[in-house]
Amino acid sequence: MSNVFGRLLRLASWGESHGPAIGGVLDGCPAGIDLSERDMQRELDRRRPGQSRMTTARKEPDAVQILSGVFEGKTTGASIGFVIENKDKNSSSYEKIKDVYRPGHADYTTEAKYGVRDWRGGGRSSARETAVRVAAGAVARKILGGVKIIGYTLQIGDVRTSRFDRDEIEKNPVRAPDAEAAKKMEELVERVRKEGDSIGGVVEVVAENVPAGLGAPVYGKLSADLASAMMGINAIKGVEIGSGFKCAAMRGSEHNDRMEPGGDRPKFKTNNSGGILGGISNGDKIVVRIAVKPTPSILKEQDTVDKNMRRTKITVEGRHDPCICPRVVPVAEAMMALVLADHLLLQRTSRI
Amino acid sequence: MSNVFGRLLRLASWGESHGPAIGGVLDGCPAGIDLSERDMQRELDRRRPGQSRMTTARKEPDAVQILSGVFEGKTTGASIGFVIENKDKNSSSYEKIKDVYRPGHADYTTEAKYGVRDWRGGGRSSARETAVRVAAGAVARKILGGVKIIGYTLQIGDVRTSRFDRDEIEKNPVRAPDAEAAKKMEELVERVRKEGDSIGGVVEVVAENVPAGLGAPVYGKLSADLASAMMGINAIKGVEIGSGFKCAAMRGSEHNDRMEPGGDRPKFKTNNSGGILGGISNGDKIVVRIAVKPTPSILKEQDTVDKNMRRTKITVEGRHDPCICPRVVPVAEAMMALVLADHLLLQRTSRI
Amino acid sequence: MSNVFGRLLRLASWGESHGPAIGGVLDGCPAGIDLSERDMQRELDRRRPGQSRMTTARKEPDAVQILSGVFEGKTTGASIGFVIENKDKNSSSYEKIKDVYRPGHADYTTEAKYGVRDWRGGGRSSARETAVRVAAGAVARKILGGVKIIGYTLQIGDVRTSRFDRDEIEKNPVRAPDAEAAKKMEELVERVRKEGDSIGGVVEVVAENVPAGLGAPVYGKLSADLASAMMGINAIKGVEIGSGFKCAAMRGSEHNDRMEPGGDRPKFKTNNSGGILGGISNGDKIVVRIAVKPTPSILKEQDTVDKNMRRTKITVEGRHDPCICPRVVPVAEAMMALVLADHLLLQRTSRI
Amino acid sequence: MSNVFGRLLRLASWGESHGPAIGGVLDGCPAGIDLSERDMQRELDRRRPGQSRMTTARKEPDAVQILSGVFEGKTTGASIGFVIENKDKNSSSYEKIKDVYRPGHADYTTEAKYGVRDWRGGGRSSARETAVRVAAGAVARKILGGVKIIGYTLQIGDVRTSRFDRDEIEKNPVRAPDAEAAKKMEELVERVRKEGDSIGGVVEVVAENVPAGLGAPVYGKLSADLASAMMGINAIKGVEIGSGFKCAAMRGSEHNDRMEPGGDRPKFKTNNSGGILGGISNGDKIVVRIAVKPTPSILKEQDTVDKNMRRTKITVEGRHDPCICPRVVPVAEAMMALVLADHLLLQRTSRI
Repeated sequence: MSNVFGRLLRLASWGESHGPAIGGVLDGCPAGIDLSERDMQRELDRRRPGQSRMTTARKEPDAVQILSGVFEGKTTGASIGFVIENKDKNSSSYEKIKDVYRPGHADYTTEAKYGVRDWRGGGRSSARETAVRVAAGAVARKILGGVKIIGYTLQIGDVRTSRFDRDEIEKNPVRAPDAEAAKKMEELVERVRKEGDSIGGVVEVVAENVPAGLGAPVYGKLSADLASAMMGINAIKGVEIGSGFKCAAMRGSEHNDRMEPGGDRPKFKTNNSGGILGGISNGDKIVVRIAVKPTPSILKEQDTVDKNMRRTKITVEGRHDPCICPRVVPVAEAMMALVLADHLLLQRTSRI
Repeated sequence: MSNVFGRLLRLASWGESHGPAIGGVLDGCPAGIDLSERDMQRELDRRRPGQSRMTTARKEPDAVQILSGVFEGKTTGASIGFVIENKDKNSSSYEKIKDVYRPGHADYTTEAKYGVRDWRGGGRSSARETAVRVAAGAVARKILGGVKIIGYTLQIGDVRTSRFDRDEIEKNPVRAPDAEAAKKMEELVERVRKEGDSIGGVVEVVAENVPAGLGAPVYGKLSADLASAMMGINAIKGVEIGSGFKCAAMRGSEHNDRMEPGGDRPKFKTNNSGGILGGISNGDKIVVRIAVKPTPSILKEQDTVDKNMRRTKITVEGRHDPCICPRVVPVAEAMMALVLADHLLLQRTSRI
Repeated sequence: MSNVFGRLLRLASWGESHGPAIGGVLDGCPAGIDLSERDMQRELDRRRPGQSRMTTARKEPDAVQILSGVFEGKTTGASIGFVIENKDKNSSSYEKIKDVYRPGHADYTTEAKYGVRDWRGGGRSSARETAVRVAAGAVARKILGGVKIIGYTLQIGDVRTSRFDRDEIEKNPVRAPDAEAAKKMEELVERVRKEGDSIGGVVEVVAENVPAGLGAPVYGKLSADLASAMMGINAIKGVEIGSGFKCAAMRGSEHNDRMEPGGDRPKFKTNNSGGILGGISNGDKIVVRIAVKPTPSILKEQDTVDKNMRRTKITVEGRHDPCICPRVVPVAEAMMALVLADHLLLQRTSRI
Repeated sequence: MSNVFGRLLRLASWGESHGPAIGGVLDGCPAGIDLSERDMQRELDRRRPGQSRMTTARKEPDAVQILSGVFEGKTTGASIGFVIENKDKNSSSYEKIKDVYRPGHADYTTEAKYGVRDWRGGGRSSARETAVRVAAGAVARKILGGVKIIGYTLQIGDVRTSRFDRDEIEKNPVRAPDAEAAKKMEELVERVRKEGDSIGGVVEVVAENVPAGLGAPVYGKLSADLASAMMGINAIKGVEIGSGFKCAAMRGSEHNDRMEPGGDRPKFKTNNSGGILGGISNGDKIVVRIAVKPTPSILKEQDTVDKNMRRTKITVEGRHDPCICPRVVPVAEAMMALVLADHLLLQRTSRI
């Protein structure tokens, strides 16, 4: 249960940060989709470490191999097994601190739950697992056909974007849709990195061309599944849809998105709903924002305790991203794709 | 799938706002728990409409009847079936607008999904369904034993609480832990009500005495399940855990909760994590905040379209809450209880 | 988990034999199906006790009430809640033996699992629960459209049918498709009843017009789901599909069903496969047989133990069927319908 | 859904017969279990082809590699990913018949479902997938601790065993617990093989030391889950528990297993129940029998049709087992182990 995601389209994930490999099994993918490793690789390359000074120095080619479920270039309806080798493992910096609980990490909670812990690079709790999501998300995108999913960084520290230029996003290392803000964000991250610290941010993901009717009114709400998918990404502390927390200070007369005729479906004059009304997509853009906490791995010395509940101090060496927003972007897009594809399939059963 | 909530402890819910009754089936409840209708009724009475001018004038006793799963005052391990009759139904105000899509409501999206719609009082999309959650949540609280769950209103419109007095919460109609702010909130809601409008807010739910070790590191994160549970409540547009969106502007050195010895487990000096690290509870308070949108049902005239995509105007009569925060409180508590109880049971299987 | 059946089309069931009522929630039913209580009642009447000397003297009208999910005569896609009151409860004969474990019953095992037991009429383990399945099965039949499901008794004790006359089935109280065998079966059951004993049998269920392509090749096999559904009916000790146990003595050259052209799909010359090849329907008749054990409730005195593990003797009074085959028929049909309808919906997602 | 097996202990399986590899992900395994590849290999070696003339000539070392979930020799609670390479693939004999539907195989039904088919060695429908079950079953056995699961061949063609000598089972190539019958079975299989034909049989699996209380009274019956697990194995056409189909000719007075005091639990004088009463284990031996159809792959020429619905004849070359009973034994044991381990974990949540 803890390693399987989805309802009809299900991803079972396995692998630890410093084990021989990580991988996944995607079950429930319809037959007849053109699929190759290139489709996964394109997305994995966007998540890959080592793309700039902003990200960990770990050098992982993240080359994915599809081992089943595809025949003569098309999905067969069988489960799609795929594997990504861990090439650049270096557990030495972890060995020193294997009995110490890193603040902000899952070290203590993992032991509280399981009694044991693979301390090498965070084991199963490592963000390395998100590569599996990105690979599976690439298949979900194929299921979604014309739906377009795009993610970007809205904020890092106190720097917020003030304009939206889609073409800019993949041109700067922070993946911000605003060249000027991107530059300031870069400078901030670099400053933070030099201080041996880290910094948080906000990422937004938008899906366009989503048909109306995805989701369900009670416990299978599209909004609830998106919230679960997003909050389930490492380091996420908040999720908003549409107006998000701004709705608290709004009146109904202001928040309600008015409708006007839009052909065979209503056109909404505003999008406070974020494309979801009563848990079901309304045909407008799906808009989700997530709060990304500052990476807990920092060089600065911190107070903590060890396994024997003795006070100690820790300096987390290893290779870490001072700000993970740019790498969260493809992961959040993948989770959005998995949820939407799942609901697109579910939707096929809603009417006789 | 759309009407079943939970993993091991599963709630199947049924019933429409203006049907003969609503109810639920709670499966997976351990045997041997003292349970009576009074346990459910106590919580239902907190959610019940008609408690103040702040809430809808619909008069529902919300008397719950347990029909199975309890024998001689104790749960038997069998599924617990319960029913709440709908007494005060008045569909007349809905009949007039049955072909018009109410802005901010699920009217259009329900038809986009199912092709048909029970337009009486919102049907299945009505917040009336949340009574089922509250009843089931009362059982979950019993499973949780010493865990204490408490919810309250933090903000309505632009009025925020500035102090926390637990004893104050149930004394004022807005359920705020701050008498002074509560008074301002009441005034604001009353003003909004008179204008035929509605207003949003923020509700916080806290769980104390939660053992460390609940949750899982990847897709069964406690945080992800809480996000899903909360975002699945009607009218919720955002969910935060611990620091929430504030984390975006924080540094790792500031956000990481330092540990010190606390007996057999670490004591955390701060609680930015909201009691959850890497998806697993750390023994500290679980803190969740949710953004509640202004009720979409307002008396003010709004532009919209009808089924035939013709422009029209609508005034939503009926009996509605100008601010639903106080009634969201027991619902959010119930959802928190259901998630925690589910994970408490799951936790029993984590070690050999 | 223990009280929810199905994958996409899910039935949550509740209620004990001698509680106030039993009922179910059917989730995942597509919108737009004509449905009324009459559809359920027709099937319930076939399962109802008291139809002949062959069945228990308990007088239950088994009048079902649909409480949700249907609006203006059509399903809405919402969960369908339904309730059947228990009218003719008489727990007195059970009170005397509440501390004694009835041989062949779930008394001991229920206590071994849950520590407590509702001893009134078998509680949750009573075959009374199967009324819920029959009611839900009536909805599944509607989803299935042109698929025809028919069940009948093949064998009671050592009496086997030797011919198949479909029109005969509902004309005799044992539901056998052979008037002559039916007469012998009736005599046998009557003899057994007078002896205060009971007798087993074999029931067969056939589905016609099932499209090819339902099921899946590995763990979602249609055969596996049917086996689970049938073995999950009270008193069933064996399940066969097609050739069943006869296949053990057959050669491949004899068992393989040869194909010849049949329009746009193959026509099979024999049906040893029982309509399922590799877990997927082949378009031929689905044929399932189940072994029904003799009712464990018998008047004859039996050796047993009580709660305190003391030797004792027991005579099970109460109102029992000496042979339950005729009443298993509608239940087995309902389970077949639920499984097929579930797979029909799942099938919609198998190709892009 | 189609490639994931289990409730709490879940196996996701992937891989085709002639793809690069097959493998699985076992989720929900408790932490703290000693586990190594040797544990899996021991069972895989029992299932491996090429052990005698009785089995296919395909030479597969079936060397399993565990890629995650185990750290320092113990399970960590993380998902256990494992891979088995396909070494001896030879698709040439399949290429010739790729447009022809083999009788008794899933060729036509796979295309009916998915529109496409990996025709190399049966693709996903190949019994090669059962290696994944056997590997996962080895972990389940570890969870089960003192529970002992043993399988054997009871019947091949018309030869039945007439005695039970446990030590004999693994000494003869048919895995029969009766040396004399084993010899006759061997001769029969050899004769059938020379004729280019195949033959069916019956396999029995028994679990000892199973605690009372596993299972559930309604839809989570241990019997139903076992039936599903067994019917889900390739080539199985029937499943019996305890008395099985014999119960049809029995009286209640004969079938009911009488109880006598047995310490803190009843001792049953007979075991017609097969260790399961009302869907819950009673502490006696769990006894399951399955009917194994004759392998459909035979050298004898058969009538069939091709993709274009033209009559044709087929001779299935390739490397096939004339009787698969001996190789079904470890697979059926593995499925029994997976079901029992799953219910052992579920059982931990049945009481407060």
